[in-house]
Amino acid sequence: MLKFEEYLAKVNGAISAIPYPAEPSQLYQPIAYTMALGGKRLRPVLTLMACEAMGGEADAALNAAVGLELFHNFTLLHDDVMDKAAVRRGQPTVHRRWNENVAILSGDAMLTLATQYVARVDAAVLQPVLEVFNTTAMEIYEGQQWDMDYELRAEVTEADYIEMIRLKTSVLLGCACKVGAIIAGADEANANALYEVGQNLGLAFQLQDDVLDVWGDEATFGKEIGGDIMNNKKTYLLINALNRAQGDDLGELRRWITDEYAMRQEKVPAVRAIYERLGLRQLAQEAIAAYTQKALDGLAQVDMDDDARKEFAEFINRLVNRSK
Amino acid sequence: MLKFEEYLAKVNGAISAIPYPAEPSQLYQPIAYTMALGGKRLRPVLTLMACEAMGGEADAALNAAVGLELFHNFTLLHDDVMDKAAVRRGQPTVHRRWNENVAILSGDAMLTLATQYVARVDAAVLQPVLEVFNTTAMEIYEGQQWDMDYELRAEVTEADYIEMIRLKTSVLLGCACKVGAIIAGADEANANALYEVGQNLGLAFQLQDDVLDVWGDEATFGKEIGGDIMNNKKTYLLINALNRAQGDDLGELRRWITDEYAMRQEKVPAVRAIYERLGLRQLAQEAIAAYTQKALDGLAQVDMDDDARKEFAEFINRLVNRSK
Repeated sequence: MLKFEEYLAKVNGAISAIPYPAEPSQLYQPIAYTMALGGKRLRPVLTLMACEAMGGEADAALNAAVGLELFHNFTLLHDDVMDKAAVRRGQPTVHRRWNENVAILSGDAMLTLATQYVARVDAAVLQPVLEVFNTTAMEIYEGQQWDMDYELRAEVTEADYIEMIRLKTSVLLGCACKVGAIIAGADEANANALYEVGQNLGLAFQLQDDVLDVWGDEATFGKEIGGDIMNNKKTYLLINALNRAQGDDLGELRRWITDEYAMRQEKVPAVRAIYERLGLRQLAQEAIAAYTQKALDGLAQVDMDDDARKEFAEFINRLVNRSK
Repeated sequence: MLKFEEYLAKVNGAISAIPYPAEPSQLYQPIAYTMALGGKRLRPVLTLMACEAMGGEADAALNAAVGLELFHNFTLLHDDVMDKAAVRRGQPTVHRRWNENVAILSGDAMLTLATQYVARVDAAVLQPVLEVFNTTAMEIYEGQQWDMDYELRAEVTEADYIEMIRLKTSVLLGCACKVGAIIAGADEANANALYEVGQNLGLAFQLQDDVLDVWGDEATFGKEIGGDIMNNKKTYLLINALNRAQGDDLGELRRWITDEYAMRQEKVPAVRAIYERLGLRQLAQEAIAAYTQKALDGLAQVDMDDDARKEFAEFINRLVNRSK
């Protein structure tokens, strides 16, 4: 079985080989720009890894893997329009670099391009691959809608939040695993078991993201810490803080949330301190550990050879223990 | 072979039977709202008609037909955001009734839903059906991008315009025909010939749309006449007028285009009169007749029984001679 870095090289090679028509340039340049911004390439790597783990050839899954990465980047592109985000991976977002219409239309084209790549699989597996891909896409839109709904809703429970990130983030990791397994010819039970592994990994991964925004090291993380705190983003931490804080802590938290002119160097440490007093760092770490364990337990149920399982487990552990 | 009205009833029945999840309501309600606004259902009817004409069962093509109508309505939904249009089929557009984020995200969901319906065909034809559907979708985005580019470009030739409407409108009619033919088991030559019929019909159809906006009867047309003129929309007529007008006509046309405060009851008849002096009504009618004839000639090349061909020809003639 190939190592993680080799999968990544394969994926990056295929992504940089995507041909874009020259014209109309405002339609295709933003897609090339978005794909060139980089990223962890987590989803396509999972697809190749799952395919080989289940006895297939990584190359047979490469186009579908690229399709999933195109899809992921399409969702980021449109989400950035909806969130009015100015920066993505350290560069101006498409709607800032060009304009909103360009971002909408090139995003649409990116979704269709993603589908074209996902559909480049053996005809024998096209129907099940498309089925999981399209179902997953619908779930991701649901997750994004819940995310926007929750920003305006007073009461959001931890369970609401977990379900939202399951839809918005985790199902695509599940899908990436399942698509690789299907292409390898895995039976439905194994493909579904690997989907669950990816989904639990996705939950651990997103919670780790929430933690890194508060306690990450700015130099290692590669972006400013505390962005979620400054935007009052309803993360696992803020939701639990609002549901658990009492007395002075609750009062102080509410003041920081409503203070539109709060300075970053004051608000971030103050809110972080409240989270720490409420034991939320520990709570989040326990949740991450629990979802990671679920992923690893699930992996033990999948029929694959022990080398493949070991490689997969290493990948999971590396991801959830990452510092960036 | 079934009559047009029966196809339409089938299509409308299937569209009203699309199940939408209740939640998240802001994601699914706009899709249901858009599909309930009605429309000619031209594309799905063409798919059913093509399928039966090529010896298939209309019902075998019904889901794919619904998928093409979902796709068409998705493009209208996102185009309305890009054009900042307030009204569609006499009702508020989605971004006005809800908001822009809802319009973007529910449009994305509509595109995936469209793909899911298109993919509900026999596994044996899934790959070629998806191939023409996805290729067509990319062409339609290109057409929309050219349309936006041309609004800001000083010089647009008639050939540029024809290529733009071919991409933005006609290829989907070609695709509707080809998908029906593929589902019926037609060979590639016949499927492609029927694609050309649909594409030429689409060109005639769009030019007729341009003509109706200027010379249509308001009561019959069902919407206000002169919308394109008031918006200085670069239609077949305005492009040819700008390229042909000289002297006083050109001066007057330019004044109307730059007069932001022009009254509808003055500008529309004045621009219409310029078009008439330049012989553009006649020119447009000749172009419509030529594309219609191409569609009918193409139809003569397709292997189908004479009843089916007669029905198809009647449908083409009715569409290009429509007054609404």
